[in-house]
This record gives sequence, structure tokens and C-alpha cells, in this order.
Amino acid sequence: MSTAGLLIIGNEILSGKVVDTNSPFLARELRSLGVDLERILTIPDVVETIAEEVRSFSAAYDYVFTSGGIGPTHDDVTMESVAAAFGKPSVVSDSLVERMERAVGKQLNPAMKKMAMLPEGAQVIDAGDLWFPVIVMENVHVFPGIPQLFEKKFHSIRDRFSGVPVKLTRIYVTRYESDIAEDLHGLLAEFPELMLGSYPRIGEPDYRVMLTLESRDDAYLERATRSLCERLTAAVIHRIE
Amino acid sequence: MSTAGLLIIGNEILSGKVVDTNSPFLARELRSLGVDLERILTIPDVVETIAEEVRSFSAAYDYVFTSGGIGPTHDDVTMESVAAAFGKPSVVSDSLVERMERAVGKQLNPAMKKMAMLPEGAQVIDAGDLWFPVIVMENVHVFPGIPQLFEKKFHSIRDRFSGVPVKLTRIYVTRYESDIAEDLHGLLAEFPELMLGSYPRIGEPDYRVMLTLESRDDAYLERATRSLCERLTAAVIHRIE
Repeated sequence: MSTAGLLIIGNEILSGKVVDTNSPFLARELRSLGVDLERILTIPDVVETIAEEVRSFSAAYDYVFTSGGIGPTHDDVTMESVAAAFGKPSVVSDSLVERMERAVGKQLNPAMKKMAMLPEGAQVIDAGDLWFPVIVMENVHVFPGIPQLFEKKFHSIRDRFSGVPVKLTRIYVTRYESDIAEDLHGLLAEFPELMLGSYPRIGEPDYRVMLTLESRDDAYLERATRSLCERLTAAVIHRIE
Repeated sequence: MSTAGLLIIGNEILSGKVVDTNSPFLARELRSLGVDLERILTIPDVVETIAEEVRSFSAAYDYVFTSGGIGPTHDDVTMESVAAAFGKPSVVSDSLVERMERAVGKQLNPAMKKMAMLPEGAQVIDAGDLWFPVIVMENVHVFPGIPQLFEKKFHSIRDRFSGVPVKLTRIYVTRYESDIAEDLHGLLAEFPELMLGSYPRIGEPDYRVMLTLESRDDAYLERATRSLCERLTAAVIHRIE
């Protein structure tokens, strides 16, 4: 089983000026791959903070992803922070300079040259039809914050990540959570390995709670689903997906 | 200046089944109050993890907010985790039991009684017309994950939080970030206290970069805006907001 952590880097998210859509995107993608996303952390554009969290995430999870802070301006400090996290200097990548000059058709200005400074030892991975590659430092995958680019770049290297996909059954229930809580406890006593979620919804005309039953084991999930249906009785179940 | 940290608690966010809208909501609200949101962390429904992060956030920020995990089912473990964070036992709140029984018009079942267990010493604060109050333990404000309730509850106690609001000017620029990076460096050298953000946009027909200039000092912001406009020249500026 593989685990992952996601670092969202950017003052614009914390100040509410921009809504982070990269987290929900990556959460869904990793789920479908069967990789367990264990933590999402949003932090400001501050080198020491980013470096500390990159170091700690890199040690804690199989895959780490960062979003944001890799452009050419003063507030783009992710790359130097990743270098600092691993105690490496930032060095000009000649192959990246060449690649960028080919893409823009002229010599790089100082701001663009900054984008070609990578942590020593970083891998440069082609990102499909995008001119700027994906940079990977040990298990840390450095992505841009712009959602269109984040998504394209993730898709371009999606094959590198693998896990055992989780199977999901949703059961929509017409009772309040507190009325079915005992049934859920009973179910978990019988199926301790089941991942069971209970989510009340307001304003849904047809149901009050969405239950999610999840397992990496198909047969286990099926048995648990059957057991829950017996506990709840059909009158309480609006639908099963 | 006041600071804040936000803990989003819930497997459903990490697995991509539910999109977290409470973070962007609270980020905008705190910004308009002038409170600096410094960190947003999404973690699973695990007591030890929640307790550790609540303790660390409580020490680091003036205000801490938690979202999720306070319902009546097995996966609602936030309240006991907050108790553990402060080394307090969970105790039945008689006033809360009474309030809940009045609201539902009958004796509480075991699942509902669980919702009346609070960390010893927690404050119970009326939440406007909502039957379930806001629970506050030291500087930690415990909110439900359901967006409608999260928002209503925040509004009901919004007056408790205060800071010095930040003034914002947005400048939309028709050039690439790398073309204006030097101008931004010059601006920051002249106005080191300015909060300056640079956000490239893809697919906008009229501009390529949104710049944000922010300060708590009106006059400072005005001078910085004027200086930047002179540096960039009018031809590059699409509009100012």
C-alpha cells in the first residue's frame, strides 16, 4: 500500500483570494490509483516553512506532491525550499536552460533563468506537450499551482504511481445519523477492517445520510454491504450505488 | 495582529469523495476580519493525529478552528481528540443534554448522548438559531463539517474575532511574469513591507498575470501602487481594481 502527502504552497490560498482546486483533483486521482493520501497542508510562500514541511513529508510518505511557487517571480520560492529541505545547493540545469530556450526561441532573461535553477540531483522528467518539465527530487514531485498545468503534469506522469484500488459502495439512508449509529457500530464489530464513513446531508429531499463502505477486498466489501442492509432493513435505505 | 490555523478533519476529504468548501469560506472570512490564516491542514479521523495537531496549532496560533467529526457516529472523534490534546477527560455536559432534549423533544439515545460529551472545561456558546451550540476549548473552536452548519456557526460567533483588515489592490497585466519580474523586485526593494503576489492566468483573453498588492496601511499601499504603475507603464496594465 502506498501513501502520499500534498503540500499546497501559496499565500493566495490562505488569504482566500484563490480557491485551491488542485487538492480535490489530486485526492480523486490518487484514490482511483489506490494510493492513500494521508495529509494535505497549505502553507505560505516562506522558504523555512516549506523546507521543513517538505523534509518531514518526504520522510513520512511514499510520494510527496507540491503545488505552487515555481514561477519566475519573487514569491516563487518552492524550488529553493526543496533544495534546502534536502541540504542541497540550487544549481543551473543546462539541459533545462536549453529546453527553455528552444521553447521560447530566444535567450532567457534573468527571471526565466531563475526557473532553471534546480536542487542538485533533481530529476527532470518530460511532461508530455508542456514546455516545462516535471521536477522530482527524491520522492518529492514539484508541480505548478495553475490548475490546468497541475492537472496536465500529473496526467503526464500518472503511470509512476501505483497502489491497490479501493472499492466503494454508497448507501443512502432516510434516517438521522443518531438513529443508525448502533447499526454502524455492530457492522464495524463484525467487519473491523471495513472503512466506513457516515455523512449527514442537509437539504437532500430523498435521504439524510450517505454511508460509504470501502475495502480493497471485493468479497469483504460485498459481505459487509449485505450485513449492513440486513441491519438497516430495506425501509430505511433509499438507494445503493 | 491575530493569527489563525484551520484543521479539516475527515477521511472523506482525503479520499476525494467530498470537496472541502469550509477552507475557502473561512479563509475569506478571516481575511475580511484582518486575521492572518497561517495554515490549513487536512487529516484523517484518527484520535492521536487530531490530538497532536490540535495541541500544536493551539500553541502556535491565536485562534484555531476545526471542521468535522462531531456527529454521533463511530467516525466522529474530534471532541475526544480535543480533550486528549489538552489532557482533559471527556465529561457529559448536563446543560448540553438538556438543550438537546429540548430541541428533539425526547430523551437522547446513546448515539446522541455521545454528542453531549465535551472536554472538561469547554465553553458552550449559543449559535444563533441552531440547536447545537459552538464548543470552544481554550482557543480551539470546534465546528461541524457540513458546510451549511459550519458557515452558520461561524457567522454566529464572528464578532469574537478581530484583526486589522488588509487593503488589497489588484493590477491585471498583459505581459508574462518573466517580463515583469524585475519591476516587481524593484518595487519590493522600495516597499519591503508590501505583500505582493503574482499569479499567472491561462486562458484569460485580456491579461496574463494578476498582481495583488496588499498592506494594512492605506497610504503605503497607495504609494506602492503608484510606484508600480510608473515602473510597468500604462501600456502593460489592462486594469486596476
